[in-house]
Amino acid sequence: MQTKLINNKGLVIGGNKIILIAGPCAVESKELYTSTVNNLKYVDILRGGAFKPRTNPDSFLGLENKGIEILLESQKELNKPVVTELTKESNLNLFNDIDYIQVGARNMQNFELLKALGRTNKTIILKRGFGNTIDELLEAAHYIKKEGNENIVLVERGIRTFETSTRFTLDLSSIAVIKAKSTYPVFVDPSHAAGTKEYVESLAKAAIAAGADGIMIETHINPEKALSDSKQALTVDEYNDLVLKLDKVAKAIGRTIL
Amino acid sequence: MQTKLINNKGLVIGGNKIILIAGPCAVESKELYTSTVNNLKYVDILRGGAFKPRTNPDSFLGLENKGIEILLESQKELNKPVVTELTKESNLNLFNDIDYIQVGARNMQNFELLKALGRTNKTIILKRGFGNTIDELLEAAHYIKKEGNENIVLVERGIRTFETSTRFTLDLSSIAVIKAKSTYPVFVDPSHAAGTKEYVESLAKAAIAAGADGIMIETHINPEKALSDSKQALTVDEYNDLVLKLDKVAKAIGRTIL
Amino acid sequence: MQTKLINNKGLVIGGNKIILIAGPCAVESKELYTSTVNNLKYVDILRGGAFKPRTNPDSFLGLENKGIEILLESQKELNKPVVTELTKESNLNLFNDIDYIQVGARNMQNFELLKALGRTNKTIILKRGFGNTIDELLEAAHYIKKEGNENIVLVERGIRTFETSTRFTLDLSSIAVIKAKSTYPVFVDPSHAAGTKEYVESLAKAAIAAGADGIMIETHINPEKALSDSKQALTVDEYNDLVLKLDKVAKAIGRTIL
Amino acid sequence: MQTKLINNKGLVIGGNKIILIAGPCAVESKELYTSTVNNLKYVDILRGGAFKPRTNPDSFLGLENKGIEILLESQKELNKPVVTELTKESNLNLFNDIDYIQVGARNMQNFELLKALGRTNKTIILKRGFGNTIDELLEAAHYIKKEGNENIVLVERGIRTFETSTRFTLDLSSIAVIKAKSTYPVFVDPSHAAGTKEYVESLAKAAIAAGADGIMIETHINPEKALSDSKQALTVDEYNDLVLKLDKVAKAIGRTIL
Repeated sequence: MQTKLINNKGLVIGGNKIILIAGPCAVESKELYTSTVNNLKYVDILRGGAFKPRTNPDSFLGLENKGIEILLESQKELNKPVVTELTKESNLNLFNDIDYIQVGARNMQNFELLKALGRTNKTIILKRGFGNTIDELLEAAHYIKKEGNENIVLVERGIRTFETSTRFTLDLSSIAVIKAKSTYPVFVDPSHAAGTKEYVESLAKAAIAAGADGIMIETHINPEKALSDSKQALTVDEYNDLVLKLDKVAKAIGRTIL
Repeated sequence: MQTKLINNKGLVIGGNKIILIAGPCAVESKELYTSTVNNLKYVDILRGGAFKPRTNPDSFLGLENKGIEILLESQKELNKPVVTELTKESNLNLFNDIDYIQVGARNMQNFELLKALGRTNKTIILKRGFGNTIDELLEAAHYIKKEGNENIVLVERGIRTFETSTRFTLDLSSIAVIKAKSTYPVFVDPSHAAGTKEYVESLAKAAIAAGADGIMIETHINPEKALSDSKQALTVDEYNDLVLKLDKVAKAIGRTIL
Repeated sequence: MQTKLINNKGLVIGGNKIILIAGPCAVESKELYTSTVNNLKYVDILRGGAFKPRTNPDSFLGLENKGIEILLESQKELNKPVVTELTKESNLNLFNDIDYIQVGARNMQNFELLKALGRTNKTIILKRGFGNTIDELLEAAHYIKKEGNENIVLVERGIRTFETSTRFTLDLSSIAVIKAKSTYPVFVDPSHAAGTKEYVESLAKAAIAAGADGIMIETHINPEKALSDSKQALTVDEYNDLVLKLDKVAKAIGRTIL
Repeated sequence: MQTKLINNKGLVIGGNKIILIAGPCAVESKELYTSTVNNLKYVDILRGGAFKPRTNPDSFLGLENKGIEILLESQKELNKPVVTELTKESNLNLFNDIDYIQVGARNMQNFELLKALGRTNKTIILKRGFGNTIDELLEAAHYIKKEGNENIVLVERGIRTFETSTRFTLDLSSIAVIKAKSTYPVFVDPSHAAGTKEYVESLAKAAIAAGADGIMIETHINPEKALSDSKQALTVDEYNDLVLKLDKVAKAIGRTIL
């Protein structure tokens, strides 16, 4: 089906131009955050987690409110929108100036959260749960849409299988399947699926060639020091180089990325 | 490790006596609910969903507040505690008179909900997510415990695999694994895993033999008319017969169920 | 469906008596083999691999012809039949005096091997492939049956899933499913699924309670020194104790095991 | 690691030029076969199954020896090599004039077959089992190599997961993983994974972008009449069009396909 465009303050998602989302997994400090995002040469939306739903509660759980503040500062300084994850409805008031709200894989079937987001007009970046089918992802989107919000982007970020060489198995066929069954734009997050930065380039190129409308790539000014997911983050230079390669693939299928 | 007992108003979980939880998937009406639970000969905790987190928002989503009322009436009439699912913290005030709160598989990693339940002294019936490992289930329990509530029961209800003969693959090895790694009692829900009532007896017996501390079985006065999960519910008579068979298996391993 | 009995020289499979198969994973030497099997108090069929289809060709691949000789000697000395694995048709001539031939999980869809076994009158112990559905297992059996041999026992030994606490996920629902769809007896191999001997007792009891017609348990006189699968083998004493516990479970469901 | 080139009578695999393998799933008749392959504008190796290891023995199992004859005729007429599947060692004598031998997914761990192929100097096209890890695929290749044959191409064709929208989940990350761990060329078969021809284009482009050294695409002169896998075969025209699109993607990453 024809992908339906989302226009969020002039940034068009689902069209010919492929969207670039980059930044660190978590906002760790003002200094680390800006030193990363200020050096990204090509990026449409800045990412970074303030509220981190980690598997183990003893892990780093994000800077929370302080993290949101840092994101909003970068948004203003760089004049680029940010996307960050919401984990409970009662935090929505902190997201007034954030235009893109991510629902993480673990909350894909947190239907109360989806309904709350359906009552906003934010652009919702809905990640596929790692134990969920494509049909369930579409039904989760339907929870949001049913409340009135049609600004929904679906994200393939890998599913859980028996294969252990990668952290998750990136299911790139989901792009074609979602496009056959719905009108939602589809982004791909190769970083979380790969779990190792060596595999990110190959998967990112594949995602573009397969028809992804956007790509989310973890980048860090100093990946080895990252507090979460350090193995899968690209350095800023690696990211900038990768985008140029992705641009060639995008052009080969008649799209643009720069 | 030695299972740590939970004593909720005299009902002891994790001891020699295996706990029976029965009732319909959803509370559909006062009449249907009582006609089911009043005919259960052997049961320790009555179950029934009032808030139903269904995959598709166009499905029957439960009677909500009215469902809670019906459950509380049965609780009083039969002098048996009820267990029902909570899907968002802001509903907690409706659960004042409910001693057992279920967290469904889809919310196993809804960490905000887990933290909220950790601040109560309810007995939490935490179901394993169908895409989650046993270690993640233990870490989810840790979210509750870390807030101060140690009254946690883990429930094996099947994981998602490539096998399609059953709705989910019941992972009975999780009982031995959980008991090797933690002190939580473990219940088993064979009904959701089987997806077909013909397979429930075999799996329920297996669960008891494997060492489950309790068993949750969907029963309905008229399964064919059930609004959700109709294929997997036992009739009341089938349930009553099954319990007698389970009692024999329980005795064979030195436990009791009646 | 009613399980169809197999009578192999007086040993009846699929009836009230549950079959016990025990012995080491591999035949490592005459001395190690006999010191193990001579000390099993209760056993119907002796097991042991002579041709071992290991994942890596640099692993111990079995004593081959010499292993078959050792098995035949024990068969004679103990007057108990043996079961061992065949990996290619051209070895069939070595199996003249062996009444039970195992097809391993990796060869479940080696259809040429299945057809060759279908032209014998041996009892075929067909293990489920770890990546195969129950329906495919039934279709594999159909390859054997179509050639004329109906003496087929199916074995559940665990499937591959995302769970890593156990080596494979034992799918005990397969017992009820197979019995609903076919007349084949079903055995269960908890040792390979568990991968760790601590979990074998729980799974073996569950298998009996679920309705398994037989159980295959790896035992070794000195598990720590075993050349393959050392972590999952029970000692001879542990095995002998376990059988007494399984007997109680068997009696609870109206069957016998001793 | 640097991919090691295979040169089979002048056709170089693993180099800059990406290899095209096309043809029907099965050789059904001389007429159907030639009408398909004679109309492929761009192809390096002709494919077609003569011995078909089907899940159910009542399915069409191939023309067997007659199928091999037809393949050899096309090989001569078109002066293009053929690849076809071997299912047992004793058929090897029929493959004297065939330079590329496929081992199917179901036989990936048929180690006796692998060893037999290791004693030839054929180019072995080894497909990943749908229940097997990448490490196991590499170990299976090691079985061949250990016998002396290093002409091995690995094929990603999808693994079995809980997702049912596609027949298998194509694991494109396997390309990067295999290239990080070994020197084998990697081909991709998007047709079997997709199970539906609508998804083949997207997956084929992704495979090229991800770094595949070759691609196997099922094509049929009249897919609706195909005796096996009819839903996933492209028409000859669709295939010819697709190759031109793939060529653009290949060029974008500095390779060629035409």
